[in-house]
Amino acid sequence: MAFLVNKERMENDIEALAQFGLNEKGGVDRSIGSEMDLKAREWLCRQCESFGAEVKVDAIANVFATIEGREQLPPLVIGSHHDAVPNGGKYDGAMGILLGIEVMRKIKENNIKLRHPYRVLMFTAEEPNPFGISTMGSRAVTGKLSYELLNNAYHCENGMKLSDAILAAGGNIEKLADSQIKQGEMSAFIECHIEQSSNLDDMKLPLAVVSTVTGIYREIITVKGEANHAGTTPMTKRKDALTAASECILAIEKTAREYKKSDVVATVGKLDVTPNAANIIPDMVSFIMEIRTSGQTEKNDFISKMTKCFNEIEIKRNVQIGRKINLNQAEVTMDVDVQDVLRRNVIAEQGKEVTLVSMAGHDAVHMTGKTKTAMLFVRSINGKSHCNEEYTRSEDIASAGNVLLNTILELDKVLD
Amino acid sequence: MAFLVNKERMENDIEALAQFGLNEKGGVDRSIGSEMDLKAREWLCRQCESFGAEVKVDAIANVFATIEGREQLPPLVIGSHHDAVPNGGKYDGAMGILLGIEVMRKIKENNIKLRHPYRVLMFTAEEPNPFGISTMGSRAVTGKLSYELLNNAYHCENGMKLSDAILAAGGNIEKLADSQIKQGEMSAFIECHIEQSSNLDDMKLPLAVVSTVTGIYREIITVKGEANHAGTTPMTKRKDALTAASECILAIEKTAREYKKSDVVATVGKLDVTPNAANIIPDMVSFIMEIRTSGQTEKNDFISKMTKCFNEIEIKRNVQIGRKINLNQAEVTMDVDVQDVLRRNVIAEQGKEVTLVSMAGHDAVHMTGKTKTAMLFVRSINGKSHCNEEYTRSEDIASAGNVLLNTILELDKVLD
Repeated sequence: MAFLVNKERMENDIEALAQFGLNEKGGVDRSIGSEMDLKAREWLCRQCESFGAEVKVDAIANVFATIEGREQLPPLVIGSHHDAVPNGGKYDGAMGILLGIEVMRKIKENNIKLRHPYRVLMFTAEEPNPFGISTMGSRAVTGKLSYELLNNAYHCENGMKLSDAILAAGGNIEKLADSQIKQGEMSAFIECHIEQSSNLDDMKLPLAVVSTVTGIYREIITVKGEANHAGTTPMTKRKDALTAASECILAIEKTAREYKKSDVVATVGKLDVTPNAANIIPDMVSFIMEIRTSGQTEKNDFISKMTKCFNEIEIKRNVQIGRKINLNQAEVTMDVDVQDVLRRNVIAEQGKEVTLVSMAGHDAVHMTGKTKTAMLFVRSINGKSHCNEEYTRSEDIASAGNVLLNTILELDKVLD
Repeated sequence: MAFLVNKERMENDIEALAQFGLNEKGGVDRSIGSEMDLKAREWLCRQCESFGAEVKVDAIANVFATIEGREQLPPLVIGSHHDAVPNGGKYDGAMGILLGIEVMRKIKENNIKLRHPYRVLMFTAEEPNPFGISTMGSRAVTGKLSYELLNNAYHCENGMKLSDAILAAGGNIEKLADSQIKQGEMSAFIECHIEQSSNLDDMKLPLAVVSTVTGIYREIITVKGEANHAGTTPMTKRKDALTAASECILAIEKTAREYKKSDVVATVGKLDVTPNAANIIPDMVSFIMEIRTSGQTEKNDFISKMTKCFNEIEIKRNVQIGRKINLNQAEVTMDVDVQDVLRRNVIAEQGKEVTLVSMAGHDAVHMTGKTKTAMLFVRSINGKSHCNEEYTRSEDIASAGNVLLNTILELDKVLD
């Protein structure tokens, strides 16, 4: 391996960034609009500037830290996000940015003269947040967010206007159009992220190349029964929306389990009962069915199985089941050339190739339309994320750093 | 049959009282604290006074309209409530009071001189209402409501203090203790109510004597799983609180169905999911299991079946199921002597005896501790109640009036 990153330095950086929002449980609170998000941004910018990077902030407050290359080429980019869910971990997002910075530091320390500029991209508000708009930075630069949506978003707890939060972070949504990047403006984009699942931990290996990011399909399902008195209505005469919904939920779970594949999952996470009183048979239950698959075939097959199930439940229980698609995001394939370079370096690092499907969405999904995009996964202990138990070992982070550094050096040679 | 009530007059009375709160859907809005409740009270009092009754209002604003008897005996009482749930029907409660008044009118018209005083008792706020205290009048007179509870109750929408609503209706909660009635202060209490179920409609008969009012047992059940990412957590590694709760709900329904008896029912009407987000596997689901039975044997048997089921679900799904009893109201038996008199008169009226269990609670339940108490049920078309489709035919109401009138005349002879 040509160059090795510094494990202790990575360890210190992770802890240093985590101080911005560290809570008493050991989790990190660093949502967009918070003081801690602003302090983290400031610290990250200062770090990059200390290695001679030029730091710019775009309209949505994404931060771009760039060091120049020898040639007039589009930059090679490593990026992720620095925000965290409430009581989130120290690694999700943060690790990807700090590895991007470590790569920059290594390039500078070793006085490596790349052909391409090298850039660290720190996205605004990737996580679900109180303004209700996630992957905000990557959707803004890829033209997927409207000014109206941003201008009408408020913090659900304190009423802060999103545009003010963005302004405080150095952005300005009035200039939203300027933040869009064009096809060809970057040579490649790599996001390194914790796996958030336990495949690598089960395999006892630190790294995996991501082939595909899962598609996410959601339906709002409305089961309409008939409200009635919970005492005077015999069991034989009920149209109970909740028992019907319970049958739907178990059918969804059973169907997902039958695939016996970690890249086909389905969840009912949100459910509301009307009128929701102990002594009234539920009139209506609405819930969201989420299906994630890495291919359209499984998705379509899953949906048609559910159609059959729901029809049977409708007839058997004399209820109406309404369905409305509210998200239909296809799976996204990572760039095969960049995957190949990453894969060679992963084999060099851990002696073995691992390729995984990402079952979570990432900023990288949005970048695929604009540049050659790839992802590297790092082992999450017990697959935990979005909680204070989230943990990734320093040696695994250093391994990822080695792969990223050498991938950038290699891409610098082969890409224009 | 000695005396017959006037069907057309009953029809008119039902429509006249329904005008107080009649909405555009044909339902009635007449909750405690509303202007319409006050107007209904005023109209009812005037009706009773026009037949020479003496009208009194107690501390909780129950209305007592009494005509004197020949002897110094405790009164024979017919009563029910005049409030309605939002968009409730014209018959639930109201019919029982109007029949009590019709009986009074018949006694006066026919110049019948009873030994006992005869009283119509109109209870305050029997229905679930915005102050959160139902069967308010009957619980107050039987000493089951504390001053503190009443004094700290507010209208959940407009913030009105319950004590002010009671004051406006002619009561005064400061004198709550005075409203309590003592054992022996009434000779008998009869409540006539719509069935709210379809047993009579199915039998094509208008009337039934109530033998028992169902027991109501409620547990708050808490299913604790583990929140996790809806994408990255494979189906095999989930501890999904909602799929576990769904299995519990279907087991409750299945168990209740297996009794094949209309007096054993169970319902999950209230359920809440935490954190309730489309992309997070539910961490916790809490729901209320309500079981209604007319006997302790069925109740205990039902509970022990559920214990077995829940234990199996806990083990199979690796979740914790917590249980806490939050209501354990035993079934209540109606007075056998008054039942017998009612039954004879029901047979005289419809040629056939029908005895039913009331699966809903009523003011009568609370009166059982204080006097000989009984209930008469009148056919509800399609078993509908608590909705604008609630309907009971005038001829059935008149039949009930005949039975009540002749029951009062008979009880007047046999009771002291």
